[in-house]
Amino acid sequence: MLVNCVAYQKGLKLADIRLEEISDYVERPDCFVWVAVRDPSPEELDALQQEFGLHELAVEDARHGHQRPKIEEYGKSLFVVLPIIEVDGSKLNTGEVAIFAAENYVLSVRHHAEHGFADVRRRAEQEPELLRHGSAYVLYALLDAVVDRYFPVIDVLSEEIEQVEQRIFAEPPARDSIVALYGLKQKLATVQHATGPLLEATAKLYGGRVPTLCSGLQDYFRDVHDHLLRLNQSIDSLRDTVSTITAVSLALITLQENEVTKRLAAYAALVAVPTLVAGVYGMNFEHMPEIGWRWGYPLALAVMALIDGYLFYRFRKARWL
Amino acid sequence: MLVNCVAYQKGLKLADIRLEEISDYVERPDCFVWVAVRDPSPEELDALQQEFGLHELAVEDARHGHQRPKIEEYGKSLFVVLPIIEVDGSKLNTGEVAIFAAENYVLSVRHHAEHGFADVRRRAEQEPELLRHGSAYVLYALLDAVVDRYFPVIDVLSEEIEQVEQRIFAEPPARDSIVALYGLKQKLATVQHATGPLLEATAKLYGGRVPTLCSGLQDYFRDVHDHLLRLNQSIDSLRDTVSTITAVSLALITLQENEVTKRLAAYAALVAVPTLVAGVYGMNFEHMPEIGWRWGYPLALAVMALIDGYLFYRFRKARWL
Amino acid sequence: MLVNCVAYQKGLKLADIRLEEISDYVERPDCFVWVAVRDPSPEELDALQQEFGLHELAVEDARHGHQRPKIEEYGKSLFVVLPIIEVDGSKLNTGEVAIFAAENYVLSVRHHAEHGFADVRRRAEQEPELLRHGSAYVLYALLDAVVDRYFPVIDVLSEEIEQVEQRIFAEPPARDSIVALYGLKQKLATVQHATGPLLEATAKLYGGRVPTLCSGLQDYFRDVHDHLLRLNQSIDSLRDTVSTITAVSLALITLQENEVTKRLAAYAALVAVPTLVAGVYGMNFEHMPEIGWRWGYPLALAVMALIDGYLFYRFRKARWL
Amino acid sequence: MLVNCVAYQKGLKLADIRLEEISDYVERPDCFVWVAVRDPSPEELDALQQEFGLHELAVEDARHGHQRPKIEEYGKSLFVVLPIIEVDGSKLNTGEVAIFAAENYVLSVRHHAEHGFADVRRRAEQEPELLRHGSAYVLYALLDAVVDRYFPVIDVLSEEIEQVEQRIFAEPPARDSIVALYGLKQKLATVQHATGPLLEATAKLYGGRVPTLCSGLQDYFRDVHDHLLRLNQSIDSLRDTVSTITAVSLALITLQENEVTKRLAAYAALVAVPTLVAGVYGMNFEHMPEIGWRWGYPLALAVMALIDGYLFYRFRKARWL
Amino acid sequence: MLVNCVAYQKGLKLADIRLEEISDYVERPDCFVWVAVRDPSPEELDALQQEFGLHELAVEDARHGHQRPKIEEYGKSLFVVLPIIEVDGSKLNTGEVAIFAAENYVLSVRHHAEHGFADVRRRAEQEPELLRHGSAYVLYALLDAVVDRYFPVIDVLSEEIEQVEQRIFAEPPARDSIVALYGLKQKLATVQHATGPLLEATAKLYGGRVPTLCSGLQDYFRDVHDHLLRLNQSIDSLRDTVSTITAVSLALITLQENEVTKRLAAYAALVAVPTLVAGVYGMNFEHMPEIGWRWGYPLALAVMALIDGYLFYRFRKARWL
Repeated sequence: MLVNCVAYQKGLKLADIRLEEISDYVERPDCFVWVAVRDPSPEELDALQQEFGLHELAVEDARHGHQRPKIEEYGKSLFVVLPIIEVDGSKLNTGEVAIFAAENYVLSVRHHAEHGFADVRRRAEQEPELLRHGSAYVLYALLDAVVDRYFPVIDVLSEEIEQVEQRIFAEPPARDSIVALYGLKQKLATVQHATGPLLEATAKLYGGRVPTLCSGLQDYFRDVHDHLLRLNQSIDSLRDTVSTITAVSLALITLQENEVTKRLAAYAALVAVPTLVAGVYGMNFEHMPEIGWRWGYPLALAVMALIDGYLFYRFRKARWL
Repeated sequence: MLVNCVAYQKGLKLADIRLEEISDYVERPDCFVWVAVRDPSPEELDALQQEFGLHELAVEDARHGHQRPKIEEYGKSLFVVLPIIEVDGSKLNTGEVAIFAAENYVLSVRHHAEHGFADVRRRAEQEPELLRHGSAYVLYALLDAVVDRYFPVIDVLSEEIEQVEQRIFAEPPARDSIVALYGLKQKLATVQHATGPLLEATAKLYGGRVPTLCSGLQDYFRDVHDHLLRLNQSIDSLRDTVSTITAVSLALITLQENEVTKRLAAYAALVAVPTLVAGVYGMNFEHMPEIGWRWGYPLALAVMALIDGYLFYRFRKARWL
Repeated sequence: MLVNCVAYQKGLKLADIRLEEISDYVERPDCFVWVAVRDPSPEELDALQQEFGLHELAVEDARHGHQRPKIEEYGKSLFVVLPIIEVDGSKLNTGEVAIFAAENYVLSVRHHAEHGFADVRRRAEQEPELLRHGSAYVLYALLDAVVDRYFPVIDVLSEEIEQVEQRIFAEPPARDSIVALYGLKQKLATVQHATGPLLEATAKLYGGRVPTLCSGLQDYFRDVHDHLLRLNQSIDSLRDTVSTITAVSLALITLQENEVTKRLAAYAALVAVPTLVAGVYGMNFEHMPEIGWRWGYPLALAVMALIDGYLFYRFRKARWL
Repeated sequence: MLVNCVAYQKGLKLADIRLEEISDYVERPDCFVWVAVRDPSPEELDALQQEFGLHELAVEDARHGHQRPKIEEYGKSLFVVLPIIEVDGSKLNTGEVAIFAAENYVLSVRHHAEHGFADVRRRAEQEPELLRHGSAYVLYALLDAVVDRYFPVIDVLSEEIEQVEQRIFAEPPARDSIVALYGLKQKLATVQHATGPLLEATAKLYGGRVPTLCSGLQDYFRDVHDHLLRLNQSIDSLRDTVSTITAVSLALITLQENEVTKRLAAYAALVAVPTLVAGVYGMNFEHMPEIGWRWGYPLALAVMALIDGYLFYRFRKARWL
Repeated sequence: MLVNCVAYQKGLKLADIRLEEISDYVERPDCFVWVAVRDPSPEELDALQQEFGLHELAVEDARHGHQRPKIEEYGKSLFVVLPIIEVDGSKLNTGEVAIFAAENYVLSVRHHAEHGFADVRRRAEQEPELLRHGSAYVLYALLDAVVDRYFPVIDVLSEEIEQVEQRIFAEPPARDSIVALYGLKQKLATVQHATGPLLEATAKLYGGRVPTLCSGLQDYFRDVHDHLLRLNQSIDSLRDTVSTITAVSLALITLQENEVTKRLAAYAALVAVPTLVAGVYGMNFEHMPEIGWRWGYPLALAVMALIDGYLFYRFRKARWL
């Protein structure tokens, strides 16, 4: 579905154009076209390939989606695949946007993602002095937008981790918490599989041999790279936290088992000892003086209570109860 | 066993040729020969070595099979060993294809693998404009085919992991699941030992100093490398998942032990306390007023039932039962 | 809040100047301005950006705080973000100082940190022969001060670890110790996230292509780098220690469970065996010779005591009690 | 002990020579001497150092043995230390061979190793067209022989691991298996300490700046390197397998504990409940109607049996028994 | 405390000199001064700094001690910090020696270390042909001496590990062994923190751009590096062993718990079943034919013994006892 198709000149919007006009504008030297497409049909992609003259292999990747995040050079053009992660209740949805960028055009192809880039376009159009940098600036703006949208995802996960942490340290660790930790680890892996390769890829946009398209905006691309570094550090740290909590949980569970065992043993003793006393006085010997005593029975009960009282005191002191 | 032996010129099939004719065609400047062999006899390999003039050490590797995946240069020719993994019921079968490639020939030697490359040849013959690139394109097509066949293997493993995961989180982890996890880890290692070294090896086919044979098709070899990157990331992620599930299982098993211990203790208490009461009234004291009561016996039973009722309520509330 | 704003010439203080005068002094060739700001308002930052001509992206980072530690070049100026870690009771507070440095100025912007850099300024002013090196020396002095303040933090953590260690090895490991280990691991991660990236960043200030600002003071910056190496080694070692203690604790807890189980079993036996004896003499057989014996009852008690005595001796010997 | 001392010319054996003649032959331009020594006395080594003009530090290493595997250049000569691993019952014996090689000589000094290199010499003498390459080819042949002898060692370990694996998965893991796993891990480490550094060292013999001695035979040295890569991959994979089995064993042991606990509890219940019933009818109340019944006793026994039958059925269904 | 202060010329001792004469001798072109100091007072260090013209930052490091092992270049001079580890009963003491070396002098400053370098000086003076290499040879000799003294430390630790290993595999693992493993891990870390950075540092003394002072003696410094490689490999291997033993211990402890549980359960059964039988015959039913039997009582006892005998046989067979 074609979302937007606009030609720009010297940082200002020239006109909304039709898909068939693209090739005309692309050839103009001082002008660039910015097209946004969403979940395109094969025919739309074919038409766009025709208009922009895109490389077969790159279009193939954009067609199928579910690619690895990457930034590839095809001659003077760049092909960028950026994963989009959206929080959907307790799940993470993964879509992606494929961006084709060259001197005279930027084409973004969005897959399986709710949230579009209309706001990026709006902001760019309000800053003509920056948009004047041309298609490279648009590429930066899209990259920056995608990367900035990872931060709230991390914040959500970070909060969930904190909740699990509190739950585990407050009461003895339960099945739910362990399963939640597993879920969190999987979600963190999802985000890391998005940001890790991007970190590597963006490094090539500002240091060493920079693609000609990006030269002049290196400080901006370094800033994106820096945000990704921060993200990755956060993810590493959260993953580490989850691992540590898992290990600590195991220790706490084992510790709790110790405590349960001790408590059980204490209670068992409180029952077993009087049972022994009762057993003794249940013996059928003919000569058991206590049996005949007037106060034998209450005395036996008192002895049982006394022993239990003493045991209870000892167990309390040893913190078994 | 010789499967196929065809000469091509300018992207078109010239003729099916006999093994003895190979050396004639190989010397023609604008023509290349594409030979496919399967589990060859030593004599066949000797003949092929003669015809193509292959290097001793490379032929030695192709003869024995079970080599490490690799891409080696012998002068202007390339020697490639690609592992082939085929799902066979609950097992993974590992075969391999060794490819000798130079300007004028491609020779593929398949070992222990069911599925051949007839489809690759068919598709290549249908695209003469690509086959025109010569033997390098055939090498690419074979590489691409082998790598693409790893994806369904990963999908199968990924599905098995999901099943184990569900089983472990649904009911308490059982012996079967643990053993299944071990099996999955071993299978993942098998796939990783195939794709890991290939990833390294293919990197040399498009970046830095590229073998002359491959120059001009770098974008294609980069695409293969990109697929391998994706595969390796999937495998890493699955391995990580298996490790995490194993760790989580241990925690769940220990947790379940806690719960079993508690439940047992609760039931033990429900039996032990009435036993104590019965023991008390089994004592032979002469002066036990309750003994003589008309309703002593039913009262004792009622006391037992009451205590057990209370205990049951407490254990329920504490979630021990 | 503006803390200090001073112009220096040839290593000597020239004058306290007003914010509006900065741009005048910055243009003088042999003079540099050293400004310290704390938790600045947006307006203050805008004014400083104006006066010094700072880069948009750097100012943006300084405005928001909570950046990754880093050293970035913007043309001939350096932008440095240094985390500040302060021990606050049992917590670690993390602030940061952002430093803009160029030939003619040093501007430090402190966020969320109690302890300022007045002492650095005082010491620098007392050593005019060093301050003569200009703004690069001030940058070094600030870096050195920040890095030196990490050492006491590490000392505090190191001491806490030693206490937990002693507690765990003295008595059986308790819930508190495990939770404390988790807290320590988190704190160490906090410090490592500060010093790790700094280590990487400072390496660029003395080896390879050094920023022109820093050339001539490389030995000094190498010294800072060396301190960071030492810090990172300490942190790695402490993290390792915490991991080892956690693993050892798990073994000790499981071991203790063994011991508790054995002790419980021993006590259970001491009660169960006499209960069996009592049960035997509680049987109602008509022909039980012992029943009629004169000393049957005390004898039975003696048998119970003897068996228990023997069991106790055996358990002691086997170290179950 | 001198094993062999032969001079070769143009790939053919010239003569068996005496130790004192070595220096004469070494000076001839088209000839090389191949000497094999086993566990030499200090005097022999001194004589050889004299004859060949070997470097002090290298001889020192050869004298003491137990060196790290390595390949060092001393001017135009190479000094190579290769570990030899021999399977001796259930143990691994580690010896080593130190090789001094230069244009005109190869000297191998074997320590603590049963199996010599007579077969290498015999094969080399049968292939004069290869031996014609001179001392470098001999160095290759020795390297190749040493590396090829690691494979059967790995096979033995691999088989042992498979046996332990089967034992652990067939029956519940026992003390023996755990200790065997530990032994295997230690043996794998022994092999890895031999092959790991060799892998690194051999890489320098075919890529980048190659020692002049080895140039021309790079394809051969690459082949050795490739074998070492394969070995190291196998070792890594086996180590990983051992680690996984250890982790899985722990889970299986804990799981087994769960099962034992449940089974015990079930049997305890089968005894405890009838005991309670017996206790009830052991009470001495005067008014217990059942006591006087004609069939009271068999009925009580039947009730006990019925309850136990029901419990048994329930435990079976819940898989506790 | 000044230990030694000697001037050398052409490999021979010239004279014992006074501290104040140092600067005179240092200026002579063909002569070098070798000074050894132990735990110097601040004044001594100041005097030495004056005499040799040492760099402020290096002296600062030598003054405080407890530096990271390192080799730093200050212009044409080298500053080396070497940790010294001495076994003191069951503890490891860590001292250090800081060495300042340049064309014309070597100054060693020893801190917290018992064992000095008098033997190094003696041996060097006995080999004038080596000492002729000048101060670089002295630097090598000191490095070599320090590194060689690490080996016995490793041997001691290795032996301790073997003892713990035997103890753990002989009898069930005890608290002491676990704590000993922890102590060993800490000691190994201490040694690794000494040798690890040295390994890195010494690599710069023989490969790549070598400090001018060391050129000509590269083979010697490579030898030191090789020893450090060997040391580090040993330490890695010992650390790995300790980790494996810890993991194996956990498995053995859990296994032992299983066995204890089973044995307890077996003994419990041997007591519980006769108790049940006794309970049955303790019931007060009026019509219990066995009660009236002549041999009822001995028969009941026999039944108990028989059941216990059978159970005992079964438990033995199942290896629970």
